[in-house]
Amino acid sequence: MPEPSLAALRNIATQLRIDSVRSTTAAGSGHPTTCLSAADIIAALFFAEMRFDPHDPQHPEADRFVLSKGHAAPILYAAWAAAGAFPRDEVMKLRELTSDLEGHPTPRLNFVDVATGSLGQGLAAGVGIALNARRIDSDYRTYVLLGDGESAEGSVWEAAQVGAFHHLDNLCAITDVNGLGQSRATQWERDADAFVQRWRAFGWHTISIDGHDMKQIVDALAEARRTTGKPTMIVARTLKGKGCSIFEGKDNWHGKALKKGAEADQAVAELESQYVKTSDPVPAIPKPERRRSEGKLPDFVGAMPAPAYKLGDSVATREAYGTALASLGSIDRRVVALDSDVKNSTFSERFEKVHPDRFYQTFIAEQVMIGAAMGLAARGAIAFPSSFACFLERGSDFIRMAGISNLNVKLAGSHAGVSIGEDGPSQMALEDLAMARSVPNCTVFYPSDAVSAEKIVALSAATPGPVYIRTSRPKTPVIYDPKESFVVGGSKTLRQSPRDVATVVGAGVTLFEALKAHDLLAADGIAIRVVDAYSVQPIDRAGLIAAARASGGCIITVEDHYANGGLGDAVAEAVSSEGFKLIRLAVREIPRSGPPEVLIDKFGISARSISDAVKKLKN
Amino acid sequence: MPEPSLAALRNIATQLRIDSVRSTTAAGSGHPTTCLSAADIIAALFFAEMRFDPHDPQHPEADRFVLSKGHAAPILYAAWAAAGAFPRDEVMKLRELTSDLEGHPTPRLNFVDVATGSLGQGLAAGVGIALNARRIDSDYRTYVLLGDGESAEGSVWEAAQVGAFHHLDNLCAITDVNGLGQSRATQWERDADAFVQRWRAFGWHTISIDGHDMKQIVDALAEARRTTGKPTMIVARTLKGKGCSIFEGKDNWHGKALKKGAEADQAVAELESQYVKTSDPVPAIPKPERRRSEGKLPDFVGAMPAPAYKLGDSVATREAYGTALASLGSIDRRVVALDSDVKNSTFSERFEKVHPDRFYQTFIAEQVMIGAAMGLAARGAIAFPSSFACFLERGSDFIRMAGISNLNVKLAGSHAGVSIGEDGPSQMALEDLAMARSVPNCTVFYPSDAVSAEKIVALSAATPGPVYIRTSRPKTPVIYDPKESFVVGGSKTLRQSPRDVATVVGAGVTLFEALKAHDLLAADGIAIRVVDAYSVQPIDRAGLIAAARASGGCIITVEDHYANGGLGDAVAEAVSSEGFKLIRLAVREIPRSGPPEVLIDKFGISARSISDAVKKLKN
Repeated sequence: MPEPSLAALRNIATQLRIDSVRSTTAAGSGHPTTCLSAADIIAALFFAEMRFDPHDPQHPEADRFVLSKGHAAPILYAAWAAAGAFPRDEVMKLRELTSDLEGHPTPRLNFVDVATGSLGQGLAAGVGIALNARRIDSDYRTYVLLGDGESAEGSVWEAAQVGAFHHLDNLCAITDVNGLGQSRATQWERDADAFVQRWRAFGWHTISIDGHDMKQIVDALAEARRTTGKPTMIVARTLKGKGCSIFEGKDNWHGKALKKGAEADQAVAELESQYVKTSDPVPAIPKPERRRSEGKLPDFVGAMPAPAYKLGDSVATREAYGTALASLGSIDRRVVALDSDVKNSTFSERFEKVHPDRFYQTFIAEQVMIGAAMGLAARGAIAFPSSFACFLERGSDFIRMAGISNLNVKLAGSHAGVSIGEDGPSQMALEDLAMARSVPNCTVFYPSDAVSAEKIVALSAATPGPVYIRTSRPKTPVIYDPKESFVVGGSKTLRQSPRDVATVVGAGVTLFEALKAHDLLAADGIAIRVVDAYSVQPIDRAGLIAAARASGGCIITVEDHYANGGLGDAVAEAVSSEGFKLIRLAVREIPRSGPPEVLIDKFGISARSISDAVKKLKN
Repeated sequence: MPEPSLAALRNIATQLRIDSVRSTTAAGSGHPTTCLSAADIIAALFFAEMRFDPHDPQHPEADRFVLSKGHAAPILYAAWAAAGAFPRDEVMKLRELTSDLEGHPTPRLNFVDVATGSLGQGLAAGVGIALNARRIDSDYRTYVLLGDGESAEGSVWEAAQVGAFHHLDNLCAITDVNGLGQSRATQWERDADAFVQRWRAFGWHTISIDGHDMKQIVDALAEARRTTGKPTMIVARTLKGKGCSIFEGKDNWHGKALKKGAEADQAVAELESQYVKTSDPVPAIPKPERRRSEGKLPDFVGAMPAPAYKLGDSVATREAYGTALASLGSIDRRVVALDSDVKNSTFSERFEKVHPDRFYQTFIAEQVMIGAAMGLAARGAIAFPSSFACFLERGSDFIRMAGISNLNVKLAGSHAGVSIGEDGPSQMALEDLAMARSVPNCTVFYPSDAVSAEKIVALSAATPGPVYIRTSRPKTPVIYDPKESFVVGGSKTLRQSPRDVATVVGAGVTLFEALKAHDLLAADGIAIRVVDAYSVQPIDRAGLIAAARASGGCIITVEDHYANGGLGDAVAEAVSSEGFKLIRLAVREIPRSGPPEVLIDKFGISARSISDAVKKLKN
């Protein structure tokens, strides 16, 4: 690449500043000062560093840019416009309902890989994007721009660790140290060295620069490119609102657009005066050289080997998860797995054993595990991060953003509910279904036996968007034939008769309690229908309604989960139009340590509780 | 304090090791190796460093100990038994249903301040406990024992920052660097210096020691006590399973109890051989010298000044929250507030203005904000951490643990729902009610106007245990008289007539849509009942059932939240026995940027949607 003209780059930075001020003023809201501190860095990245095609932002070998400080969205849009992705005038539609130039970036825009705006997430995604380059054997580089304020988020340091551990020298981050947060100065104010010390201690190559000195920026990016064995953090000292005297370096200007008229006009005029005279052309953006495609996705469901279980075998669904995941990885290289040091409990170690190059260890850091999965998924991978279900809640806000980004992140949470037993409430997920169901585009599965678990893992890979698979700790009997098929929104009716007085809906460990209750009640001459609601979201509305109609208009749900947000709520909403009688058995208080079967009974979700509920109906 | 006998301390460590092995073997599960690496540190803390009364663990001026690596619970129990809190034999009841010696520590035990076991949370709690010492002007010290593996959690580094920022020299943490995680070696293995570098870069005083050398441990604790202006991290190199040759320093022994019989007997015999001969007595534990009580809590609800609004004033509930919080702080010094750099959006800055000494800034780090609130609450404070509601989800797992600990943590989330408008989905909380409702002992409030918001803030302080208050961004009209009263589990019927065809249940911004729908429909001669469900959990079951019965057995819920886990589910569960017709209006897809009123309509929760739903009923 020829040396880029610094004068031309400075003029691009000025243009980006002008567009950021004009678009936020037109919108009447937004964060112009946050944009202006980053303008020189963005200009250098887009016009002197990155290799990409503005007309094909999703090119698989193009360098990637993640704006972790998502509130600087206006300058991101201005940069893509300047690069030629769309007409410059469109930036004036910022934040309009009919424009995809939203307040914070989302993948509605084809140049955005992951939605940002929940601070501290961009670097974790960047780690995943950089890992993906390795997966597809590409030399694309990944750049992430962070704010100094968001560096307070622990997730940033999780990402720092994982980036260093995996020696991601294809990853370059820049921290825009403008010293000012939303409501006050950051804790580090203008102490760039505090950042250098931290990143160095976390194993990164560090470079400290004046973030408004174009030569220093360009040189730092080049140095990062030459650095091997570790990622690079460029610590850039900047001024918030740089270039406009009305707010440059001043507090109390976060998230405030300039007023239309004199205020904004004056700022734009001041910025325009900063254009420098030069005959240098705008630097050309180098395009990626080669383009390889990974091709269409295979038929994961059809390609999976049949589960190797016999009816009555005793196998934990978490174990079947691990087995299926390993098989899935052999079907397509896009399948990857991530672990936070519980691979021997979730059984994801079975994937690692056969696909070590696509198994990413993040250690006990669930936010970066999920964030990296988002980054990998944004670049074509089908990512399975797994942990104890309760610890996935650590990444709740990442899961929310994965929903907004509609990414192929397939979460698997093991050790759900009181059925884990003696480890006690801190290890019991009793709100994980609520968390997953609250993501509207997230498919939620809860298999009960090893056959359905294996089938559901394949189905998860085949289902677009986020998926949550809930597995259990205890071994459960195999109840399905290996040929049985499972679909999104399906259910299985396991027991039925013309005399059913109620439909009992279970999933996971409680399905077996329902089956036991069926037999208990049968001894008393009472018949119930038993339904396996393995697809919790979407749930089999038609099937449930039909079952309830055939069983006295009564549904009893039973779940190893708190009463709120789980299976009971899912069923209730699905059948709400029908006026059925609904009874929900669920855990209703904070549980405690004890033997699994004792806890299941104590907290009211055992065969005995179901049987009691059915008998009460009859009275 | 006289110099403690090192020989006596070593023998205590041996006793703690023996008890850890015996109790986990008796339980048939647990983490003996994790206990053994920490035995010397724990012995020194309990018998040569901390000032406390084993018979009065909650003494307000006693030094505090938080076992962040909660899976080492058996040695914590062994230490309290050795100190005399309960008979040594009781440790053999570990993990039994009838014993409070659970798999991981919970505050069911009076010597546990906060439940641990979700790794990486203890130090954040420790920061809060240390801040509380300042609040009550006590010289008690706070000690936190972390595992090396859990140091991968970002929350640890959030806590590190906040501890350093607030110069908490009354806080001393120890990292037990045994090098082994659950499924493999940690990323740092035996590199203690990696820890020293990190903690130093994060502003802590650091001391590196051999964690099995009693003299070094005792000296390091003394050095920490002498250190001023910053917290201290003692990095202790240890061996997992120290003292038992069967697993000392070996991988694949995490979370595995020794088998009853020969295996355990041999280990205990080996440990017993490590007792050293000494005539030195067991060191006496110094008790706290003074004891001051903060007295009974005041009547917060009665003591609050009347809200200073007139009917029809236009005030955002988030603003009323800030006003009320400031008033509450003047009523009692136990009221504290925490902010993650959004105080000017949540209006908690109003509290800071009048009570700067009880306002704790954690910067953009929600996990430590909530964790520190847990620590403060564990020591008597009534802690109000607030942020944008969606960013509280960052601390979802801390909120779960605050529920297990049943602490006085009063979360307030602002900027709920699509009504925030142009900032877009990343800033919209649409699953926060689901998160809060999934904590079974969490009271959930959702005020609609400034009067109810102020009253609810006082009510929150008066309500034991965790509380979540949801506030809104837009200004809403004041509809309640300042004398109106609000109760846990209450609701308000705002419109009713004998001809009502449905009950519309709203809260927050949607209540005003329901009122508008009432007027729209009245123009068409259709009457509806309108209920303000300001108490979402518990919800006013009796009131809702009565309202529905009086309005055709039909309830329409409308909420600025996703359909799952929020107001609609709360109402559905409450009335599930009645067979009512339920219609829920809620946000059902990922939203986007746009003007608030346009989004409210676009996503189906406006007066128009309500009116349409009511008219559809009639057909």
